[in-house]
Amino acid sequence: MCQLLGMNCATPTDITFSFRGFSQRAGITSDHCDGFGIAFFEDKACRLFVDNQSAVESPIAELVRNYPIKSRNVIAHIRKATQGKINLENSHPFMRELWGRQWIFAHNGDLLDFDPPLTGHFTPVGNTDSERAFCFLLDQLVAKFGYVEPSLTQVFELLLEIAPKIAEHGTFNFCLSNGQALFSYAITKLHWLVREYPFKPAQLIDLDVEVDFSQVTTPEDRVAVITTEPLTQNEVWQAFQPGEMILFQYGQPIQRAFTQVDRLVREQANPTLKRITRADQY
Amino acid sequence: MCQLLGMNCATPTDITFSFRGFSQRAGITSDHCDGFGIAFFEDKACRLFVDNQSAVESPIAELVRNYPIKSRNVIAHIRKATQGKINLENSHPFMRELWGRQWIFAHNGDLLDFDPPLTGHFTPVGNTDSERAFCFLLDQLVAKFGYVEPSLTQVFELLLEIAPKIAEHGTFNFCLSNGQALFSYAITKLHWLVREYPFKPAQLIDLDVEVDFSQVTTPEDRVAVITTEPLTQNEVWQAFQPGEMILFQYGQPIQRAFTQVDRLVREQANPTLKRITRADQY
Repeated sequence: MCQLLGMNCATPTDITFSFRGFSQRAGITSDHCDGFGIAFFEDKACRLFVDNQSAVESPIAELVRNYPIKSRNVIAHIRKATQGKINLENSHPFMRELWGRQWIFAHNGDLLDFDPPLTGHFTPVGNTDSERAFCFLLDQLVAKFGYVEPSLTQVFELLLEIAPKIAEHGTFNFCLSNGQALFSYAITKLHWLVREYPFKPAQLIDLDVEVDFSQVTTPEDRVAVITTEPLTQNEVWQAFQPGEMILFQYGQPIQRAFTQVDRLVREQANPTLKRITRADQY
Repeated sequence: MCQLLGMNCATPTDITFSFRGFSQRAGITSDHCDGFGIAFFEDKACRLFVDNQSAVESPIAELVRNYPIKSRNVIAHIRKATQGKINLENSHPFMRELWGRQWIFAHNGDLLDFDPPLTGHFTPVGNTDSERAFCFLLDQLVAKFGYVEPSLTQVFELLLEIAPKIAEHGTFNFCLSNGQALFSYAITKLHWLVREYPFKPAQLIDLDVEVDFSQVTTPEDRVAVITTEPLTQNEVWQAFQPGEMILFQYGQPIQRAFTQVDRLVREQANPTLKRITRADQY
C-alpha cells in the first residue's frame, strides 16, 4: 500500500511544511520506501518529480523539501510496492495530457484482476494496477466527451459512475487533478482539512516541527490538504466516508457525493468472501 | 532561438560533464535564460525536469549538475523565447505517452504560420510553435501506424517525410526520443560526436573543466552527444548537413538520411524571399 498527499489552494502556496512531515513516512515514521513522486501544477502545465529512491534518501525529495515551489494543485505519493517492480515507470504520480492540460493521478490501494480493455489512446508505461486505472479513467472521459473539454462537474459526475466500478476490484483511494481542481475519492482511508483565516499554528505528527500559519499567510489564502493519515496533531482532520468523492477548488470542497460501496467495503473487510470480477462491464 | 543537447549511450551514463558546460550558456557564456529542461529516460519511463528559471539560477538545474542520473537517452534544452511566454507550459522538452512509452521532444528554431489541424489526441498545453510541431508529429505517427507500435526504422522513415514539410515554415532542428533511440534532425545547426574506446580527455569550451574519460569509462561504454554548438574544444564535432536526419542507438548513428531542403535553406538564408505556406498539405 502507499500514502497519498494532495493540496488544493485558493492562491499559489508551497507544500514544504506538509511534505516534510509526509516524507518522514518513507522510512522513518513508516516504511513507504519504494519510490516517491510529487507533481506541482502551474496553470495547465505541471512539474513532476519522481524517484525510485525513498523520499527520505532521494536528493530530488531533498530539493522539494527545501525549494518552495508555489502551486494551486499538488499531488504527492510515497510507495510501498504491492504490484509492479520498484522502478521509475511504476512510480506515482502518473501524468497524461488530455484537452491541452496535464492530468495527474496517484492511487492508494490494490486492485485485483483489473485488466479492462483500453483503446490505445492512453497506455500504461509501467505495470501497476494504478496506472491501468488512470488510463482507464481517461479513456472513459474521452469515450464520453470526445475532444471537447467538459466542465469540472461533468467530470465529477462521470468519475462517480466509474470509480465504484473500479473499486469492485479492491481498494481504490485516489487523488486526480488537471490543474484547475482536485478530485479525491476514498474507499477505505483518506482525510482532509481546510486551513483558512484566521490561521493558527500547526504541529507535525511525524517530525518535531511547528509552523504558525498566521505569520506566513494573508486573509486571501485558503488551503485544502488531503492525506491518507493526518499530518498534524493539533488540527481537526475529517475522514472520508467509504465511497465518498470530494471535488476541491480554491482551497475548499465545492462538490461532495457518495457512491454505493456497502457490499465492496464488506468484502474488503472480509477478503475471504468471493470477489465477483466484473471486467465484462467495461 | 534555443540550444539543444542530446545524449544517446550504449550503457547508462551520466550527463553531468556536458550539462555543466551546456548550462553555462543560460546567462554566462550566452543568453539562453528563458527556462530550461532536461529529460532522462529509464527504459520506457522518463524523469523530466523543467523550470522557467535559467539553467544558471534554477535550483533544479543545480540538482541536475550535481546528481549523476544515469540514462541511455537524455534530451536537454535551454530557451531563449521567440514564441510563447516565459512560463512552465512553454518550457522544453515536451513529453507525451504513445504506445506505452514516453516520448520526449525539444526544438531549436522558429516556425512561422505553423498551425496544422490536430486530431485532439495530442493537444499543446502551452502556445509554442515547438509543442504544436511535436503534437503534429505524434498525430502523424498514430495516423500512419494506429495503436500498433512500429519499428524504429518505420518511425525514421515517416519522420523523413514529415520533418521537411514542417521545415517549410522555418528553422526546425530537433531531438526526439522514446527511450530506445534518439532521432535528430537539423535544417541549420546541430553537431554531434561519438566518444568510445579508447577514451581521451575532453575540455569544455564554456567552463574551465576537463575530464579524462579514459579514467571513468569501460571499453563497453559508447556515448553519442548531439548539441547545437560544440561543447568541447579538443574533440572533433561533426556538423549536420542541412536537412540531415540521424538516428542514434547504442551510442552511435545507426541510420542517416538527407531530406530535400535546398529551396528552404535558400529562403532561410534570405528571409525576404516570399515563404509559401503549405498548411493545406496537412
